[in-house]
Amino acid sequence: MDDSVVINPIVSSLERFLENKNYSKLIVITDTNTRKYCYNLVKSNLPKHSVVSVPVGETHKTLATCEQIWEAMTQAELDRHALVINIGGGVIGDMGGFCAATYKRGIDFIQIPTTLLAQVDASVGGKLGIDFRGFKNHLGVFQQPVRVLIDPVFLETLPPRELRSGFAEVVKHCLIADADKWHEIREKDLERQKWPDLIAHSVAIKQAIVAQDPTEKGLRKVLNFGHTLGHAVETLFLRKAPKERLLHGEAIAAGMVMESYLAYQKKMIDRQTLEQVEEFMFSVFGKADVQPSEVETIVSLTRQDKKNRGNEVRFSLLTAAGSCAHDVAVSPAEMRKALQYYMGL
Amino acid sequence: MDDSVVINPIVSSLERFLENKNYSKLIVITDTNTRKYCYNLVKSNLPKHSVVSVPVGETHKTLATCEQIWEAMTQAELDRHALVINIGGGVIGDMGGFCAATYKRGIDFIQIPTTLLAQVDASVGGKLGIDFRGFKNHLGVFQQPVRVLIDPVFLETLPPRELRSGFAEVVKHCLIADADKWHEIREKDLERQKWPDLIAHSVAIKQAIVAQDPTEKGLRKVLNFGHTLGHAVETLFLRKAPKERLLHGEAIAAGMVMESYLAYQKKMIDRQTLEQVEEFMFSVFGKADVQPSEVETIVSLTRQDKKNRGNEVRFSLLTAAGSCAHDVAVSPAEMRKALQYYMGL
Repeated sequence: MDDSVVINPIVSSLERFLENKNYSKLIVITDTNTRKYCYNLVKSNLPKHSVVSVPVGETHKTLATCEQIWEAMTQAELDRHALVINIGGGVIGDMGGFCAATYKRGIDFIQIPTTLLAQVDASVGGKLGIDFRGFKNHLGVFQQPVRVLIDPVFLETLPPRELRSGFAEVVKHCLIADADKWHEIREKDLERQKWPDLIAHSVAIKQAIVAQDPTEKGLRKVLNFGHTLGHAVETLFLRKAPKERLLHGEAIAAGMVMESYLAYQKKMIDRQTLEQVEEFMFSVFGKADVQPSEVETIVSLTRQDKKNRGNEVRFSLLTAAGSCAHDVAVSPAEMRKALQYYMGL
Repeated sequence: MDDSVVINPIVSSLERFLENKNYSKLIVITDTNTRKYCYNLVKSNLPKHSVVSVPVGETHKTLATCEQIWEAMTQAELDRHALVINIGGGVIGDMGGFCAATYKRGIDFIQIPTTLLAQVDASVGGKLGIDFRGFKNHLGVFQQPVRVLIDPVFLETLPPRELRSGFAEVVKHCLIADADKWHEIREKDLERQKWPDLIAHSVAIKQAIVAQDPTEKGLRKVLNFGHTLGHAVETLFLRKAPKERLLHGEAIAAGMVMESYLAYQKKMIDRQTLEQVEEFMFSVFGKADVQPSEVETIVSLTRQDKKNRGNEVRFSLLTAAGSCAHDVAVSPAEMRKALQYYMGL
C-alpha cells in the first residue's frame, strides 16, 4: 500500500496531512447523513472552512447536485489553490471528486470515505463521476485524490446491511487476486472479520492493479469481476422498486455467482471453485430475487457496460480462486444460461 | 511543432488520421454556423457518423448545451472506443472537448479549428471547459486531443473582424517569445500577413510552452499575457452590451496595451517597447471604449482570474519584446493607473 492512502485515526491523519500544506481555502462536502454522523468527528480539528451538504443517496448523484456544489465553491471564492474534503460514501467521493476535478480545470481534493464500500473500493483508484439519464457513472474523469484518509471508526456509524454491502468488494478483491485470503475469509462469518486488516488488504490489491493500468485499458478491468451482470441486476432492482433496491454489494454478490458460472461454463474454473463461491455468497448475502421474466432486461442492460467494445459484451472472469482474466466475450445465450442457473440454485 | 498538430488540407489530413484507427463510432460536433459553412468540406470524406449541432456563440458555452451533447452521445450509443470530432471555433473545441473528456470518463477527440483564434490558440494545449454562472471557463479539465487538424482554407469562411480577433493571439505569441517575429509582423498590415506561416509559428510557440508545463503551475501562465485585464474588459463589455460585445482578440489587444503599461510602470520594459506595442495595437485593433466610471468594475473583475492566489492578483508581464515573466503581483492602484493611461491615449 503506498502512502497516498492512510489508515489511521482521522483526527491525527488529517492534522498530519494539512500541517505542511498551504491551501488558500478549505471546503467540506458531505451528504445530510455524514454531515450529522461523521463531520462532527473532524469539525473541531479543521482550520477555517466552509461546508456544503447535499441530499443523501445515489438518486442525487446527478448534474443538478453538482451544480449545487460548484455554486457553493464559487460562492466561497475558491481559487486553484483550495482543497476539497469529501466526507461520505461512494456517492460523495465520486461526485465531490468530480466537482473538484472540474472546478477551474481541477483543484486538489482528499477523500475521507465513511462506508466500508468506499474505504475498500470507491475512494481508491481515481474513478470519479456521476449518473446521467439513468446510466451509472456515465459522466466523469480519472483523477487521483491527493490523499485518502481511512478511519475504521466510521464503520460504527454504518447500518449492518451497509457494512455487509461493502464486504462484497473485499470478497471480490480476494477472489481476483489472493486465494489464501479468500479461503481465510470464507471460514468466518461477517461478525468475525477483522476490518482494519481487510481494509488494508483490499486497498493494497486495488492500488497495485490501478498503478499498472490507471485508465482501465486492460488489466484494471479485472476489478469489474461480478460487476457486468451485477450492475445490470442493480439497475433492474432500482427501476422496479426504488425503495427496496438492492445495495451495490448485494447486487455484486449475485453478479459474482452468475459470472463464476460463466467461467465454469467456459471451463475456466472447476466445479469446486464455483460451489465455494455460491455457498459463501448465499450464506452471507442471501439470494437476489430475480424473475424469469426479467432475464431479457438484464441481458440487454449489460450492453451499456463501459467495458464493451461495439456490440460485444465483455466480462472479467475468474480463471481460478485468486486470479482473473479480462475482456472475455460472452454471448447473450451464455448470459441467459447463467441467469437460469442462478435462479435455479 | 510536434505531430499532434497537422497543418494541411483537411480532407487528406482527416483521411490519413483515420486510416490506421479502429474507432467503434464517430460523432461530429458543430455549431449552426460551422454545420453550414465547414462541415460540408469534410462530410463526404467521413465514414458513417452522427452529427450534433448546437447554437452558436459564447452564451451557449454552458452546462445546458453540454447536456444536449452528452444526450446525443448517449443516443448514438458511443462506447469508450468512439471518436468525437469537433468542428468549430474555440467554443466548440472547448465545450466539445470537455464533453468528450467526461463521457464515460473520457473518450478520444480531435479538434478541427475553423477560426484563426482557435487555430493558433484554443485548439492547442488541452484546456477544455465551459462557462458557469457568468464566469469564463469556470468548469473544465486539462486533456489533450488525440490530434489537431488545421486547414487555413477555413479562414476564408470567416468575417474579417473574426480574422483580426484571432490575430491578437498571434501577436501575443510573438511578444512573449519571439522578438524578431514581432518586428516582422508589425511592419505589415493585417491584409499582408502570411497565415499558414503565422499559424505554424504560433502553434510551435504554444506547444513548446505547454509541453514544459501542461497544467499551468508556472511557465504556462505567460500565455496569459494581456488576458488578466483583457478578460476583465471582455466580461465588462459582455455585461454592458451583449450585442455589441468586444471580440476576444479585441479585448486582449486592449489588455496587452494596459499590461505593457504595467510592465513599463514596474520598469520591466522600456518606453520604446511600450510605444511600439501601443502603436501597433491601435493601428490594427483600434481602441476599446472604456469609461472612467468602469475602472472599479474592471479592477474587481480581475479578482476572479484563475491565476490568482488568495487575494493577490497576479499578472504575466513582458520583460522585453520577446520575453515574459509570470506571477507578478499587481495592486489595484497600479491597475487603476494603467487603465487611466489607456483611456488617455
